[in-house]
Amino acid sequence: MPTKDQTLVTLREAHLGPMRFMNILSVFELGIVDLMRKQPNQRFTAEQLGAAVGATPDAIYQLLLLPVKDGLIALDERTGEYTLDGLAQLGDEDFARVLPWMNMIKVVCLRQLYYLTDSIRAGEVVGLQKLFGLTGTFYEATLGNDELRSAWGSMMDAVTEFIDPWFFDNVEVGAGQKVLDLAGNTGLGAILTYRHKGVENLQVTCFDFPEKEAEALANFEAAGLAGHCSFIGGDVFKGVPKGFDLVLIKHFLDMFDRDNVLKILRAVAGALEPGGQVYILVPIYPEDIRESSSVDFFPSYFLGCTMAQGGPQKVSTYSAWLEEAGFEVTRAVTQDHATMPADMVPVHGIICGTRKA
Amino acid sequence: MPTKDQTLVTLREAHLGPMRFMNILSVFELGIVDLMRKQPNQRFTAEQLGAAVGATPDAIYQLLLLPVKDGLIALDERTGEYTLDGLAQLGDEDFARVLPWMNMIKVVCLRQLYYLTDSIRAGEVVGLQKLFGLTGTFYEATLGNDELRSAWGSMMDAVTEFIDPWFFDNVEVGAGQKVLDLAGNTGLGAILTYRHKGVENLQVTCFDFPEKEAEALANFEAAGLAGHCSFIGGDVFKGVPKGFDLVLIKHFLDMFDRDNVLKILRAVAGALEPGGQVYILVPIYPEDIRESSSVDFFPSYFLGCTMAQGGPQKVSTYSAWLEEAGFEVTRAVTQDHATMPADMVPVHGIICGTRKA
Repeated sequence: MPTKDQTLVTLREAHLGPMRFMNILSVFELGIVDLMRKQPNQRFTAEQLGAAVGATPDAIYQLLLLPVKDGLIALDERTGEYTLDGLAQLGDEDFARVLPWMNMIKVVCLRQLYYLTDSIRAGEVVGLQKLFGLTGTFYEATLGNDELRSAWGSMMDAVTEFIDPWFFDNVEVGAGQKVLDLAGNTGLGAILTYRHKGVENLQVTCFDFPEKEAEALANFEAAGLAGHCSFIGGDVFKGVPKGFDLVLIKHFLDMFDRDNVLKILRAVAGALEPGGQVYILVPIYPEDIRESSSVDFFPSYFLGCTMAQGGPQKVSTYSAWLEEAGFEVTRAVTQDHATMPADMVPVHGIICGTRKA
Repeated sequence: MPTKDQTLVTLREAHLGPMRFMNILSVFELGIVDLMRKQPNQRFTAEQLGAAVGATPDAIYQLLLLPVKDGLIALDERTGEYTLDGLAQLGDEDFARVLPWMNMIKVVCLRQLYYLTDSIRAGEVVGLQKLFGLTGTFYEATLGNDELRSAWGSMMDAVTEFIDPWFFDNVEVGAGQKVLDLAGNTGLGAILTYRHKGVENLQVTCFDFPEKEAEALANFEAAGLAGHCSFIGGDVFKGVPKGFDLVLIKHFLDMFDRDNVLKILRAVAGALEPGGQVYILVPIYPEDIRESSSVDFFPSYFLGCTMAQGGPQKVSTYSAWLEEAGFEVTRAVTQDHATMPADMVPVHGIICGTRKA
C-alpha cells in the first residue's frame, strides 16, 4: 500500500494537471516555440519574446517557468535569455502529431470535463448541452459545430494515419471475398481496404446510416472505385446485412458499454455463415493497467466528453466478448509500444474471430 | 538536454493532466470514496458501487482504472472487488485540505484555462467575461458570484489556517507599536495580529477600500477588539497612510507584476519613518525552480484565472525589489517543506525590511 505522503503527492499531481496542460499549450499558442524554432541560434529575453508575441515580459517569465523546469525550454539564469531545450529535439512531424492532440483536449475536453460527474450520472454528455447547446453523442452533435469537429478531426486524422496501414497489414483478404466495413462512415475505410488489399474481384461494402450514402458514393466515384465499393444504409443495432465473408469493425466498439458491444457482435455473428470472419480494431488497455497511459485518458474522454459510455477494454475482455457472441478468436495483435512515438496514448489491438458452427 | 523521447513524454504527461484531474475528482464527487471510507472492511464490486452512486457498472469500471493504477484504490482482479488503497491512509483533516483545492481548480480554473492565451494577450481575465459575464479581476468580480467565491474561499481558508500562525510566529511587534495591515480586507488580519501579539497598547489598523469599512468595524466589534483595531479607507496605489511603525503586507504582492509591486513598496517606504518596518508574506518560488511544484500551478492560475498578471517570485527577487524601494532586508524566512503536508503546493516566504534613512 502506498504511504500517506505518496498518496498526497498523487492527489497533488492530479490537481496540478489542468494548470500544467494549459501553461504548456499556451507557450505554443502564443507563438513562442515557432519563433524560437525559426531562429534556433538566437537567444531571447523575456522582453524580446513578450514584444514579439504580444505579452508582458512579466507574463513571459511566469509562463516559461514550467517549460524550463520540464526541460522543454532552457533559461540562462545569468543573462535571462531563453533558448529551446528538449523541444529542439523535435521535428515538424512530431509537432504535427502532438499539437492536434493538445488542441483536441483543450477544445473538446477541458470545459466539458467540468460536467464529468453529471454526465456519468445522467448517462449523457451534459457538457455538450451546457456549453454548446448540443444533444446526442459527441459524434452526432458536432456535425454542426466547426470548432469541435475540426479539433477532433485533426487529432483523429493523426491517429488513423498511423493506425490504418498497420491494421490492413494484419488483415487477410482472399480473392473474390465480400467484405463489409461496419459503421464505415462515408466510405474511407472501404476505399483503404481495396487499396491495401489489391486481390482479384474484391468487393467492399460500407454499412452506415442511410444519410451517409450520397457522400460515400461520391467518394467511391472520386477514388475511381465505384465498381468495387458499394454502400448499404442501415443501423447496426437494428440488423447487419448478410452475404459477406469478412466484417471489419474499426474504431467503433470502444464507443459502447458491454451490453451494446455484445449486441453488435451477436448481430454480426448472426449475419455471417459459419467460418465467416470478423476483424475488430480498437484502442485497448494492456492486461496490466499499471503499464498504461490510456487509462489516464480514455475514461474521462468517453464518459465526460463524447459518449457518456464506452471506453477501451483489455484484449482478454474483447476476446471473451467475441467468444460469448459466437466467435472463435483466432488471432490477437497488439501495437508494439516500441514502434510508437513516445507521446502517443492510444495503443490499438486487432482481434480476429471466426464464426462458430 | 532531454532526449527526444523524454521531451515527447513530457508533452504527453502535460496533455493527460486535465483528463486525470477530473477522473480522480469525479471518484470523490460521485461519493465512491465516502462510501468506502464509511465501510472500510467492505469489498465492493463495480455493480454495487454503481448502484450506490447512480452510475453504470461499466462507468465505474472505467473510472476506477486510473485510481487503481495510481494506488489510490485497490482492485482484486480475481473477484472484481474494490477497496481503498492509499486513500485509506488519509484522515478527515487530509480530505478537508485536499478536496477544497481540487474543487477550486475545477470551479475556478478548469473552464477559464481555455482562455489562458487570450487572457495573456489581453492583459485581462478573458474567461471571467466569456464564461460568467464578469469584468475586473477575479477578486473583484466574484463578490457577486457564489459558486466562484465559495470554491475559492474554501481553498483560501485551508491555506491561511495553515500559514497565518506561522506568519505571526515570525513577526516581532513591540509594546505600544502602531501596525498597519495593508490591503487588510475586512479586518481579519488585524484581529489575528492583535490576538497573536498580545503586547501592551498594540494598535492595529486595517487599510483597504472604503467599502470594506462597515464590515471591518463590525468584525472588530464582534471580536471585542473595537478599542484596539481600526480601519482607514483608501487605495494603496493612490497613497499609504503615515504614522505607523510596522506595515504588514499579506497575500497581496503576488497579485501584481513588478512595476506594481514596486509602486506599492515605494508607497509604503514613503509612508514610514527611517527605521520603520515592513513584513511581506507571499507565496514564493524556490531559488532552484526545478524543486518547485508552485511553478506548475501559479502562472496559469494568476495569468488565466484571477489577475491576468502577477505570480510568486523568488525570495531573492522580492528582496531585490524591497532594496530598490528603499528598504534594507533584515530577514527572510521560507516555509520548511518538511513541515508541510505533501500535497500542499504554495510555499510561503516572509521577508522583513527596514526603511533606510
